[in-house]
This record gives sequence, structure tokens and C-alpha cells, in this order.
Amino acid sequence: MREAAAAAVSDEGILSSDFVAEMVRQMRAIDTYGTYDDWSVEKILEPFILTKQQRREIPIIGDPDEIILARIKAFYNAISALLEKECGLMAVPMVNITHEGFGRALITVGKLVVMDKTLRDVHRFSFLSLSKMKDEADRLLSVALAIIDEHPKAAGM
Amino acid sequence: MREAAAAAVSDEGILSSDFVAEMVRQMRAIDTYGTYDDWSVEKILEPFILTKQQRREIPIIGDPDEIILARIKAFYNAISALLEKECGLMAVPMVNITHEGFGRALITVGKLVVMDKTLRDVHRFSFLSLSKMKDEADRLLSVALAIIDEHPKAAGM
Repeated sequence: MREAAAAAVSDEGILSSDFVAEMVRQMRAIDTYGTYDDWSVEKILEPFILTKQQRREIPIIGDPDEIILARIKAFYNAISALLEKECGLMAVPMVNITHEGFGRALITVGKLVVMDKTLRDVHRFSFLSLSKMKDEADRLLSVALAIIDEHPKAAGM
Repeated sequence: MREAAAAAVSDEGILSSDFVAEMVRQMRAIDTYGTYDDWSVEKILEPFILTKQQRREIPIIGDPDEIILARIKAFYNAISALLEKECGLMAVPMVNITHEGFGRALITVGKLVVMDKTLRDVHRFSFLSLSKMKDEADRLLSVALAIIDEHPKAAGM
């Protein structure tokens, strides 16, 4: 019982984080018909969260559809937007996925590649929880900022 | 008459250049059925060359097909391969084209973006002559090498 309460409190923190706010903004940007207008944050981000069991139920091999691709782009767009806020320079995301579901996600700042991620099993793109999703975004952000710190001239600082 | 002979001589030079050799290698790599096996270099690279008139005959708006995409990738792959030879570091090309025919071509070396080109009218991707095509490749190459020179650490030198 106490654990559940603690989880709820920490969820509260995550829901009001910059990352979640930016993710919701990105998802609303691709919501052409305003379907999400009266949805809660949790409901909008729900498709990103899969339990191990749910993940296992998705076939290992599958072609990613447009909806999943849009979701993946939303994730890396959000990271780029947060990075821009942090470093004050333009961050440009680029997601390249072959139809077999493999690919590469890049974020560039100036002439610098600040994130370079190989993507696999794109059709199963998901996180175990919102908190794990935010952790991954925080990690990518801090690595990107460290790379800019190391090569400020190439980043255009 | 003398001009034609001069053009033939300079074509001779281009045909034996590293760039053309690499372009032919890239085109052969995607020639799964060995169609090009007994083709001349000129014939293999012919689809890249369009006169102004030929270009004008292609509709302004059009979706690029798989063959054109493969051709564009071959061009940037060739530049990456030549760049690797020049600088001794791995050069990774990435071509991202939306179905409307717009896109972005990148080459990265280490953490450095050494080429970043916005692509437009991809379905009309072509050059006026083999010599103009080589000029463009040479230009992209020398800019890339200058960027590496300027930021050797980010390139991984």
C-alpha cells in the first residue's frame, strides 16, 4: 500500500516534468483531428508503455507502421526540443527507418552529432514505464550535453 | 571538331577518375541480377545525366521511386567511400527522403557532420554531364575534408 502511494507520488513528479510536457506537445502536434483534446497525459502517452508481457505478445519480426514511426519521431523530437532549451542552439533530429524495422536516429547540433542511436525492432518500440521512458530521455540528454561541452566549436557555441 | 576531341580527352580523364570508379562500384553493388555486367561505364552512369530539356520533361511534382532513391544513395555512398580513403576514418552516409521527394543527405565522420545537404525535387535528381557530376562530388569532398581539418577531435582524428 505504501509502495503504491510512493509510486503515485513519483509518477506525479514525472507527469509534471519538462520531458512529459514536451512529449505531450509532440503527440498533440501530430494529432490532426484533435482526438487527444480531452485525453489525460497518461492516456496520450500510454502507447509508449508496454509491460514485458505485452511486448512479448508482439511478433518478433514485423514492419513498423506509420503510427509507430510517428511515435518514435515524437520521442526524438521531444529530446531535441529539450536539448535546444538546455544549450540554446538548434538541435535537429533525423530518424531513418528501413521497412524491415531497423534504423538510425540522429540528433545534430551545428556540425556535431550529439546522439546517434541504432534502432532495432522498431515495431516494438516501447518502455516498461513512464519513469523508465523519462530515464532514457534524461540519459540521452545528458550524453548530448556532455558531447557539446567537449566539442563546443563544432556545435557552434 | 577540335572541341569535340578536347571533350573526349577530358571525358577520358573523368572516366578513369576515382570518383567514377567508385560510382560504378556502387551501382554494381545494387545490380542484383548482374544486368550491368557487360555494360560500359557511360551506360551504367547514364541515368544520372539529364540534359536541361530532358529534366524539363519530368513533371515538377512527383514521388521518387525506389530506383531513384537507390541512385541517390549510390551517389552519397560513393562520396563517403572516397572520403574514407582520403581521411582514413569511417564516413557514414544517411539519406532521408520523405515520399513527397524532399529530404536530407548527411555524411558523418565520428561525431562530426561533414556534409549536410537538403534535397529537393528528388525525382529529378540528375546532373548536366558526367563532368558536372564529378565537380559536385569533388566540391562536397573538399568541403568535408575542410570540416574535418577544422574539427579533428570531433571527427575522431
